[in-house]
Amino acid sequence: MSKDEKGITAEKDEFSEWFTQIMLKADLADYTKVSGCIVFKPTAWAIWEKIRDLVDIRMKKMGVQNVSFPLFIPESLLVKEEEHVEGFTPEVAWVTHTGKTKLAERLAVRPTSEAIMYDSFSNWIRSWRDLPLKYNQWANVVRWEFKHPVPFLRTREFHFNEGHTVYATEAEAEAEKDQVLGMYKDICDNYLAMPSLIGKKTEKEKFAGAVYSCSLEHYMPNGKAIQGAAFHSDGQNFAKAYEIKFVNQKEKSEYAWQNTWAISTRTLGIVFALHSDDKGLIMPPKVAPNKVVIVPIIFADTKDKVLGKASSIKQKLEKYGTILDDREEYKPGFKFNEWEMKGIPIRIELGPKDLEKNSVMIARRDTGEKKSVKIDQVEEEVEKLLEEIQINLFNKAKKLLDEAQVNVTDLAELKKAIKDKKIAIAPLCKETRCEEDLKFKTGGAKVLNIPDEQPAKTKCVMCGEDSDYVARVGKSY
Amino acid sequence: MSKDEKGITAEKDEFSEWFTQIMLKADLADYTKVSGCIVFKPTAWAIWEKIRDLVDIRMKKMGVQNVSFPLFIPESLLVKEEEHVEGFTPEVAWVTHTGKTKLAERLAVRPTSEAIMYDSFSNWIRSWRDLPLKYNQWANVVRWEFKHPVPFLRTREFHFNEGHTVYATEAEAEAEKDQVLGMYKDICDNYLAMPSLIGKKTEKEKFAGAVYSCSLEHYMPNGKAIQGAAFHSDGQNFAKAYEIKFVNQKEKSEYAWQNTWAISTRTLGIVFALHSDDKGLIMPPKVAPNKVVIVPIIFADTKDKVLGKASSIKQKLEKYGTILDDREEYKPGFKFNEWEMKGIPIRIELGPKDLEKNSVMIARRDTGEKKSVKIDQVEEEVEKLLEEIQINLFNKAKKLLDEAQVNVTDLAELKKAIKDKKIAIAPLCKETRCEEDLKFKTGGAKVLNIPDEQPAKTKCVMCGEDSDYVARVGKSY
Repeated sequence: MSKDEKGITAEKDEFSEWFTQIMLKADLADYTKVSGCIVFKPTAWAIWEKIRDLVDIRMKKMGVQNVSFPLFIPESLLVKEEEHVEGFTPEVAWVTHTGKTKLAERLAVRPTSEAIMYDSFSNWIRSWRDLPLKYNQWANVVRWEFKHPVPFLRTREFHFNEGHTVYATEAEAEAEKDQVLGMYKDICDNYLAMPSLIGKKTEKEKFAGAVYSCSLEHYMPNGKAIQGAAFHSDGQNFAKAYEIKFVNQKEKSEYAWQNTWAISTRTLGIVFALHSDDKGLIMPPKVAPNKVVIVPIIFADTKDKVLGKASSIKQKLEKYGTILDDREEYKPGFKFNEWEMKGIPIRIELGPKDLEKNSVMIARRDTGEKKSVKIDQVEEEVEKLLEEIQINLFNKAKKLLDEAQVNVTDLAELKKAIKDKKIAIAPLCKETRCEEDLKFKTGGAKVLNIPDEQPAKTKCVMCGEDSDYVARVGKSY
Repeated sequence: MSKDEKGITAEKDEFSEWFTQIMLKADLADYTKVSGCIVFKPTAWAIWEKIRDLVDIRMKKMGVQNVSFPLFIPESLLVKEEEHVEGFTPEVAWVTHTGKTKLAERLAVRPTSEAIMYDSFSNWIRSWRDLPLKYNQWANVVRWEFKHPVPFLRTREFHFNEGHTVYATEAEAEAEKDQVLGMYKDICDNYLAMPSLIGKKTEKEKFAGAVYSCSLEHYMPNGKAIQGAAFHSDGQNFAKAYEIKFVNQKEKSEYAWQNTWAISTRTLGIVFALHSDDKGLIMPPKVAPNKVVIVPIIFADTKDKVLGKASSIKQKLEKYGTILDDREEYKPGFKFNEWEMKGIPIRIELGPKDLEKNSVMIARRDTGEKKSVKIDQVEEEVEKLLEEIQINLFNKAKKLLDEAQVNVTDLAELKKAIKDKKIAIAPLCKETRCEEDLKFKTGGAKVLNIPDEQPAKTKCVMCGEDSDYVARVGKSY
């Protein structure tokens, strides 16, 4: 493969093409013969496992336990909650046969697990003593969307955590909201360097079956917002549909209060899209499985000496998953490009001239800066640089997000903001009519979410009547 | 629930009923509305996650990386390897529709992933530089068996690791066998306290598509053997079916050599069946998510003092996932039964009389022994006891396995051994006819596997011709 073939030949604003090239050339994923389903290759999957571990440790502190429910949902269970079934059945993959036998009842491949879980919950929950019940599963789900699939960002099979909690009171269920959203925000901010806007979804955009939904919305360099992790307050909707009742301390039977919440492999796509550049992927150091690569500059006469030193540096940097690229069939320049493409945060170059000065060259992936560092200071310098890169990636993304937001007061300003690929902060009323009108008049923008903190009410930019809230509006992936 | 209802009312030799009661009453799993598919409840799933972590850390040292391939396999891919398709299609769950649309080609819910993975491998592997390729995934798979399903031991959906490795040479592929089998044996012996017999499967019993298979066979208290983890040498069978070719260092094109290997959630069932007794589950300490439970003996006048001390002991024993059962609506005796049923390795009892002596009572779950221990020695004693319990469980299981094996030299001895629920070590020839005859004449026994170490050849117990090996023969789950 020539150097040119390895580089990204698309500009970042030709987003789809650029993103696809990143994915393939940085070896993050590949297409398969199953339309809309990808292979998650080792680097991408390692970052997902890191996200899983970060969520797991925080969840367990909240008293949540992992379980595993069946992949299949009998059709008769799926259809019990009316909004839920309407939202999901158009995208369900149906198993109709096993071996040569036709099934008496079709089985849905789970698009989400409320229906199968809550049927069990209704058997398990009898008394206030059984509550709260806090379960989570890490699962693959299938939603056969008919829109154009994009690796990570819109795949027909994806992976997520699905937290499903049941409480005796509305107040307890409500208290979980900030805990869950805070957990996701912490991981997105501090590990994925991926700032977010938290808020409530509109009636139109909420999860099918929920009372209300909250989301983390992210902003990508192509000027599109994208929904990340989410929290859904189910109220007693599912409890009523699936008969989840308990006897309270006053011996009375009541419906339980439920929440569901999730972060998915779509998040990987957002991380990759957000931080990368025309040289390829940039991985936030805290989640990169390999944070450092050492490229020795090899000449026949100094080979042993250089490789010996390179290998002792590798040992010192073991905890960073350091790679020593000692392949002799490739030139250093080729290797530099390859590891830049793959997004390794730090590259250490080491040749005979460096050795003479008892130093190495260290290059940052994010800024491209290079500096000479004494060998006995390499560990300290790497540690410092990894922190700097992590912070720099977050700050850059935060600046992008901050600058993307503009306040608008009328439709003309809203339309201009959307045309400029901004997130408009717009006063709106809660009429679905206005939301649909907004989508039409802006050429496809939608309400992303509604921030908690609200200014004084004013007039809806669509209908001119009293506004109910200011909302974030933008084109969304 | 009364004490009687909580206890196991079946004897251990009424195996199926006993096992089902353990599973339900120890809260390990539950049935669902999907026939043959269970919920893995928190304790069972936590042990599975522990097994996953133990395998992962060892695999990574072997250079294996985790990936994730699609759940679905297009029918045209599944049918490429002849033996493989014959082995698996009778049990495949087929997706035929998505939403209201009939698919042009049916999709198999993966029964195993060779077909979907190797199609990708054939695209990725071009040159000797791309080898070895060592991938693994943790996946749910579906095999719609029509035999009677049993929780954990035979479920239609189960979970496993599937290691798929590709090598340039047969020798390298062969060298992986002992590495993989050793890894599984280490985890089974030293964490699950589950001894095994390693050997090669016969032609009749090997994995569909493999050149040969090796298995860990375990032995359960009901006198049945059961296959655990396995290693399959694929030779070039799949490489030829899926066109996995590479250009070697001499510029010649060759088919690659492949292995696959797995440990599944069936293992959980073996652990539960092997160690438990008529009081319920017994968990090996090393994999028990909660290794200690503290039951305070509460009286109104000494309640605060006892709970205060119980809680300080809990803190000291935090790393064991220690539970403090301070529920006041249940009596100590009820709690003792409940935690014995759930298999917690150590129970600490603490009442006002113990406090006066500055001591607690410690009870072992495996032997039921109780002793009084000074409070300042609790940590040390718990650590020691957990080790003793772990070793005791292994030794007991090892004794059971050792005593189960008997050498036989003719059919009469073989039949007697099988009738006595033993594993017979029998000389056999490799004719499939003899294997089928053996099954018929013993009322269902089969060849479990063939040990590596072989004595001098003698006569086949079935046909009287020269034997090819001695094999382990038994009834199998």
